[in-house]
Amino acid sequence: MNWLVIMGGGSGERFWPASRRKRPKQLLPIVGKRTMIQETVARLRPLFPASRVLVVTNQEQVREVRRQLPKIRNVVAEPVGRNTAPCIALAVSFIAERDPNAVMAVVPADAWIGDVTRYQETFRDALTFAANHEVLITIGIQPTMPHTGYGYVQLGERISDRFSKANRFVEKPDRTTAEQYVASGQYRWNAGIFVWSLRAIAAAYRQHQPEMWRQIESIRDARTLKRVYPKLEKISVDYAIMEKAGNVVVANGDFAWDDVGDWAAVARHFPADGAGNVARGAIATVEAADCIAVSDEKHLIGLVGVKDLVVVHTPYATLVCHKHQSQKVRELVKQLAGQRKHRQLL
Amino acid sequence: MNWLVIMGGGSGERFWPASRRKRPKQLLPIVGKRTMIQETVARLRPLFPASRVLVVTNQEQVREVRRQLPKIRNVVAEPVGRNTAPCIALAVSFIAERDPNAVMAVVPADAWIGDVTRYQETFRDALTFAANHEVLITIGIQPTMPHTGYGYVQLGERISDRFSKANRFVEKPDRTTAEQYVASGQYRWNAGIFVWSLRAIAAAYRQHQPEMWRQIESIRDARTLKRVYPKLEKISVDYAIMEKAGNVVVANGDFAWDDVGDWAAVARHFPADGAGNVARGAIATVEAADCIAVSDEKHLIGLVGVKDLVVVHTPYATLVCHKHQSQKVRELVKQLAGQRKHRQLL
Repeated sequence: MNWLVIMGGGSGERFWPASRRKRPKQLLPIVGKRTMIQETVARLRPLFPASRVLVVTNQEQVREVRRQLPKIRNVVAEPVGRNTAPCIALAVSFIAERDPNAVMAVVPADAWIGDVTRYQETFRDALTFAANHEVLITIGIQPTMPHTGYGYVQLGERISDRFSKANRFVEKPDRTTAEQYVASGQYRWNAGIFVWSLRAIAAAYRQHQPEMWRQIESIRDARTLKRVYPKLEKISVDYAIMEKAGNVVVANGDFAWDDVGDWAAVARHFPADGAGNVARGAIATVEAADCIAVSDEKHLIGLVGVKDLVVVHTPYATLVCHKHQSQKVRELVKQLAGQRKHRQLL
Repeated sequence: MNWLVIMGGGSGERFWPASRRKRPKQLLPIVGKRTMIQETVARLRPLFPASRVLVVTNQEQVREVRRQLPKIRNVVAEPVGRNTAPCIALAVSFIAERDPNAVMAVVPADAWIGDVTRYQETFRDALTFAANHEVLITIGIQPTMPHTGYGYVQLGERISDRFSKANRFVEKPDRTTAEQYVASGQYRWNAGIFVWSLRAIAAAYRQHQPEMWRQIESIRDARTLKRVYPKLEKISVDYAIMEKAGNVVVANGDFAWDDVGDWAAVARHFPADGAGNVARGAIATVEAADCIAVSDEKHLIGLVGVKDLVVVHTPYATLVCHKHQSQKVRELVKQLAGQRKHRQLL
């Protein structure tokens, strides 16, 4: 049977103060009417019934995840975040106990998808391919711009219209390299979307991460999870498995995709006024340009003589950030975490 | 007897959203612990008992003025704002009914004074001088910088250490002219602070504004005030009287004075952090410089990668404005006034 694993444990610090520890980006309606995790479940609902969806989240968010997804019974909370390799191993182990012959898809909880029909078709093809071949499939997104914030995967030998072998994974490139990648047509964005049989992924963990796999297999209950999990290496599945495995296949992801990594990315999903300002909620401007203002209909944000700003109002905090420096919001969050009086704002 | 007239009818649009129509700058604790109008009354209390203080305000603010100044019984509300010439004429008429031999001082409700002892001495001297001479005294502030936002008065013939005749009034000068004024030592800032006998000011109105004076003298009660006042010319006392009169005297105002005209001026009254940021309330910064953040202790303003901004949080609206464009906040206020749904925010 086919299983869906949703990785929903991100902290979403780049969206502070709209996102908080207990309610990060994936649990907010950042670009849609439903929250991102609700959208993620909904758009794959035709392929995976609720009983075969597993959400991996963390202790702080588990209550809100259950509230937002009342039909999903399979929710696992990591005791601590250990990046994606341990997280996926945990999911594999969870499903193996219930359905050792399963084929599973892994998706992040917080991406936006432009063409849901193509997206679903891609999964259907990949699930079928993974059921019949011992491969690790990554769905590689056709790049639409030389994005320097994403990892890329280079295509190798062509298998069919829909699949190629993977040649190599590359980290976030600089601008020139990214432009070359896009121009070559031989690179896909690595979106963290995977499809494989339990057999194939378990074999890969056994071969490339034998110690991690041994530890994961020793987990029997909540108590052992809490004891074992924090000791696992903090490492991504890309590093731990995909870059090492010889049987990686890239499925052609020809649908619009966006990981909505910061407010500037959010803004691209909403119409701008004549001066390039994007508003969620009430806004008024005088000589303001290319700004993003996030509030609600009851609280007005007034922008006067400013450019390229992100302004986010919440009842407990206001963020004013240069649009191209939103990665530094993480530093602000770190700073606040170190101050007793402000920690409650996170 | 000596009377004090406090002109408190300003709309304070430049301080929106901290200031609102019913509670503009003079009714807020902008730079002190008490509101600016409370500070204004307090610093002249030794010279004028509450029974001889008259506050001229407007219909929208009169309730709040009475709340803030419970000991002041003499409060007159203009039916509409008509600038300072009609306002002062109204005050003259009010006092003349009660004390036709009075000497009166006129001060704006919203200025900051650095040296209250020198300030009081200046008034004492001016009140005595005005009691003995039929002159119109303006207290001219010794300029400390070539400010282009103030009007200036040029000194004429010296009368004593403390007083000179006035040569001429000049409007807000450009930078170069302002520098020449300051360098010459012959100019003072026109701070809108006046001292004169009722006899002298009434004579000046009769001579230079006979029609306005006739209308003001026809006011007998609230009903005639409401009918007559809106018809008066909207004109400043500088234009209407001071620039025309031949008996203007400048008293030497050698105390620190600031009309605190915008947030940048407010900021000069508070300590800045190492990067030039001034905060009222909770603030956290990452690579922010020369900003002014106004909030309260419960609502944090986070500034990331920004420079020269004014950020003002209130529960109903947030302003983000370039520090050197705060005069344009007025345009924002005008815009909101034209929108039914936002009018309540003013």
